[in-house]
Amino acid sequence: MAITRHESKGILSKVVEANGFVFTAGITPDNTKDDVTGQTRQVTKEIDRLLALCGTDKSKIISATIWVPDIRLRDKMNIAWTEWNGGQNLPGRACIEAKLADPAILVEIAVVAAK
Amino acid sequence: MAITRHESKGILSKVVEANGFVFTAGITPDNTKDDVTGQTRQVTKEIDRLLALCGTDKSKIISATIWVPDIRLRDKMNIAWTEWNGGQNLPGRACIEAKLADPAILVEIAVVAAK
Amino acid sequence: MAITRHESKGILSKVVEANGFVFTAGITPDNTKDDVTGQTRQVTKEIDRLLALCGTDKSKIISATIWVPDIRLRDKMNIAWTEWNGGQNLPGRACIEAKLADPAILVEIAVVAAK
Repeated sequence: MAITRHESKGILSKVVEANGFVFTAGITPDNTKDDVTGQTRQVTKEIDRLLALCGTDKSKIISATIWVPDIRLRDKMNIAWTEWNGGQNLPGRACIEAKLADPAILVEIAVVAAK
Repeated sequence: MAITRHESKGILSKVVEANGFVFTAGITPDNTKDDVTGQTRQVTKEIDRLLALCGTDKSKIISATIWVPDIRLRDKMNIAWTEWNGGQNLPGRACIEAKLADPAILVEIAVVAAK
Repeated sequence: MAITRHESKGILSKVVEANGFVFTAGITPDNTKDDVTGQTRQVTKEIDRLLALCGTDKSKIISATIWVPDIRLRDKMNIAWTEWNGGQNLPGRACIEAKLADPAILVEIAVVAAK
């Protein structure tokens, strides 16, 4: 099986393709001055970019895992989530609370997509 | 690759099929008056139903992620886990602590299955 | 689709193969007297062993999820992570904080690999 790794540096690849599937790393925002809605917009924009590197897009996301450092952020995260997918081609999803690498990061999302 | 989404509504699809694999969302119980054993019974029953929608069943689960809001609930969750699979066709599994969408939810399970 | 389960016992299989993919359970160290770096060395050694059972190896890991019970352990976990992969063939990765089955366990890692 061919494996294609994109933007490998340091400890991880940002996205990896294998056998028709695409796995992103847990993607976090660059600018942590935004609130959770703004941070989620950054993350979903970055996921769009990574999926495009693999020749696929958000319409083919199968599964998503979303971590927020306080579960009460979920509703404001969902605002950007729904803006992004427009309620179309929805993946399976789990959203759970977890402390993340930096306390200023308010959301991290990893997805599995088909291509 | 064909993608089939089942019970898509709002923010997620309950289960998605692609290329011979099936990914459920993180499934939570409807009735949170049950203890964790009872809630796990509800969740595994719902997973059975979702896998059946995709033409597969619990004997083909490859991987499971289980979240509990207090890791000490693990043993009582495992009672229902073992009732369900009878120690047969066991998936890879991770069970970790995480706060979930509602404090009354005592277990959430997502699985990947083959079909 | 053929499914091959390895080291199935009790509540889980340590690693499961299906359709060219390999999913490990969340792997934890046997000896919890080590610090997080030493525990991560144990875990990665065990993952090497499990991947070999499936006829694959660390160069084909696509995705990894790493849980630590205190996110501040991340840097010392990463020492062993980088020793292990040497910055080569890096997977997508998410590292989040979560309480694990036993407070003495300082790291748990699950991977998805191709074969």
